[in-house]
Amino acid sequence: MNTKLLDGIKILDLTRVLAGPYCTMVLKNLGAEVIKIERPGIGDDSRGFGPYVNGESIYFISINRGKKSIAVDLKSAEGKHVFFDLIKQVDVVTENFKPGTMEKLGLGYEKIRTVNPRIIYAAMSGFGHSGPYSARPAYDMIVQAMGGIMSITGQPDGPPTRVGTSVGDITAGLFGAIGILSALHKRKETGQGQKIDVAMLDGQVSILENATARYAATGEIPTPLGSRHPSITPFEAFKTKDDWIILAVGNDKLWKAFCKAVNKEEWLDEHDFATNDKRNLSHYRLKPLLDQLFCQRTTKEWMSLLTEAHVPASPINTMADLFADPQVKARNMLVDVEQPGVGSIKVAGNPIKISSIPPEKELPEEPAPSIGEHTEEILKNYLNFGEKEIDSYLKKIK
Amino acid sequence: MNTKLLDGIKILDLTRVLAGPYCTMVLKNLGAEVIKIERPGIGDDSRGFGPYVNGESIYFISINRGKKSIAVDLKSAEGKHVFFDLIKQVDVVTENFKPGTMEKLGLGYEKIRTVNPRIIYAAMSGFGHSGPYSARPAYDMIVQAMGGIMSITGQPDGPPTRVGTSVGDITAGLFGAIGILSALHKRKETGQGQKIDVAMLDGQVSILENATARYAATGEIPTPLGSRHPSITPFEAFKTKDDWIILAVGNDKLWKAFCKAVNKEEWLDEHDFATNDKRNLSHYRLKPLLDQLFCQRTTKEWMSLLTEAHVPASPINTMADLFADPQVKARNMLVDVEQPGVGSIKVAGNPIKISSIPPEKELPEEPAPSIGEHTEEILKNYLNFGEKEIDSYLKKIK
Repeated sequence: MNTKLLDGIKILDLTRVLAGPYCTMVLKNLGAEVIKIERPGIGDDSRGFGPYVNGESIYFISINRGKKSIAVDLKSAEGKHVFFDLIKQVDVVTENFKPGTMEKLGLGYEKIRTVNPRIIYAAMSGFGHSGPYSARPAYDMIVQAMGGIMSITGQPDGPPTRVGTSVGDITAGLFGAIGILSALHKRKETGQGQKIDVAMLDGQVSILENATARYAATGEIPTPLGSRHPSITPFEAFKTKDDWIILAVGNDKLWKAFCKAVNKEEWLDEHDFATNDKRNLSHYRLKPLLDQLFCQRTTKEWMSLLTEAHVPASPINTMADLFADPQVKARNMLVDVEQPGVGSIKVAGNPIKISSIPPEKELPEEPAPSIGEHTEEILKNYLNFGEKEIDSYLKKIK
Repeated sequence: MNTKLLDGIKILDLTRVLAGPYCTMVLKNLGAEVIKIERPGIGDDSRGFGPYVNGESIYFISINRGKKSIAVDLKSAEGKHVFFDLIKQVDVVTENFKPGTMEKLGLGYEKIRTVNPRIIYAAMSGFGHSGPYSARPAYDMIVQAMGGIMSITGQPDGPPTRVGTSVGDITAGLFGAIGILSALHKRKETGQGQKIDVAMLDGQVSILENATARYAATGEIPTPLGSRHPSITPFEAFKTKDDWIILAVGNDKLWKAFCKAVNKEEWLDEHDFATNDKRNLSHYRLKPLLDQLFCQRTTKEWMSLLTEAHVPASPINTMADLFADPQVKARNMLVDVEQPGVGSIKVAGNPIKISSIPPEKELPEEPAPSIGEHTEEILKNYLNFGEKEIDSYLKKIK
């Protein structure tokens, strides 16, 4: 029973860079077989994104571990032949081209489903396969700006601030994975596949939570609040003697625990601070008092004091702090993996912990592939190519 | 064939506030039945979060649409009885308590699985069910700070900046949904359930992408860059005559298209701007030239010019802009729904577009429930309670 949850699921993966490869990374980590189609000699664009170690993109490696790579020129007759032969044998096909690209190549969903009506076709694109912006080019930053998240991230009256990670790509990848798994579930009953169309912009709209609720309910336009929570106080960053600390006093019970822990029991008698609503209205009074308090000790000192009192608090961890954090280590969330030509390198672990899977099986054992590394293997095992046919194929894609 | 992908899947949902309810919202949108267990008279904490319309929390409504609510006092003998009777009949149970809470209530996974070995148990918590921080209280802001994303979000040398949406909760909810669906897939083969343990902190670590790759490869600590991309130029926000614009010149081909579109073909002859790497090194020269350029026209004027030239660009949409955006409308991503006591209110649509599901079926038809709205229905239909038993149950939870 020690087999992975998605063992046996086969994915033909035409995706490049981030949204699509992130989706298939998550599914590969859970046991799916991912066959990555790459352009001969060029491959996934992200192979050209730094940082590099010995000429290998660590960015590419971190997202494509355990996937197989077959080099296919999708514009050639041979390439299309290989593509459709593979289509017959897989459960899922993924792509994140600009909408219309697959049709131009003669590989659109309508054609694919006639070859394999059971297939799940998952497209991830900037704006989706419908609507007036559908054909526009998109990057994560574009959908962050268009999708509203930049309008609520940053300092009040400060310049525009991008979320530091590509949240537009990543959420699209996660919604794509959820769509694929749901369609696989349905297929067991119906025997039929589906087309799934996930737009990065749609994903951004669907993660705005209280900003959407606030605007829908009140018509007031939410703005950036720095580190502050819009309706909870104190719930923000404070400067300490040596750095910053995040304090998250989420309710009145925690306020009591906080005041006791920091030896400010007199604040418990203040009418203006008695409830969260009152503290929120009195933020202008409370903030300077807290600033004065926190600058007296180091972040480490405050953390030990507040942790003991069970008051939610955190340092603002840099990547160096994160790599050294005992919880991150205990949860196996930054893992040393071996990559040919690179050696040992740390990649993010698998955040989906499953009772039947031991920690050492949470990531694929195999490294990220070189371009076309598994071309021969796949031609032989999937398509029954003989040696001559393989030689001829390899010559043509050179 | 017009039935939803997860029709027939039953989820007993003990989650509150955001991470868990977001997970079951996504699964409900795809057709699962979600039975929400709420504390009699109090209910999900987020019922107490603003904004309100006629006393109803729009925040709660936006995340709990279509779920059924049964009022259960999990500390009472009756409540535990109802809980375990429901456990026998569902596919999935979800909770986002602090680790250990379910065991204290006598409802831990080890007990649950003896009652229903097929059940998928999904826990979403701040730090997960193992490791030294496991029992610590967490909020989204705490895991944003601890998980590294705040260290790469914000202005260079600026104060700490929270991502404006609760990305810690939401990614945990999405990873939880992926875990649940994968475990359901496996169950068809093995007949056995699983425990899934998703930590908000783990989710944050796993979405850092190039920050992790950069630190792992080079040892350099990534820092906030405002709106700028670390390795692509020009790829950031510029002030226009009336507002801001995001420009995303992702490659050299787009650079040519951009220079032509803005009538600056002389920049194409500049050695320092010839490739992305050179532009990146010459950012200090290029930035002032672009500032000077963009301040000459309005955002709308630039958008029309750049869109026509297929150069990726975007205004920084506020929530008001987003609600009016034609693409968002065409994709059905902000939808008017009816809620008793509230009337018509806009909520986020479903970003997983499926070929067999028409737009009007992408969200549940039913509104968000009042506390215990479906108590009688569930006691009758699931547990075969008679009228007397129902009366007695309802009296006890008053």
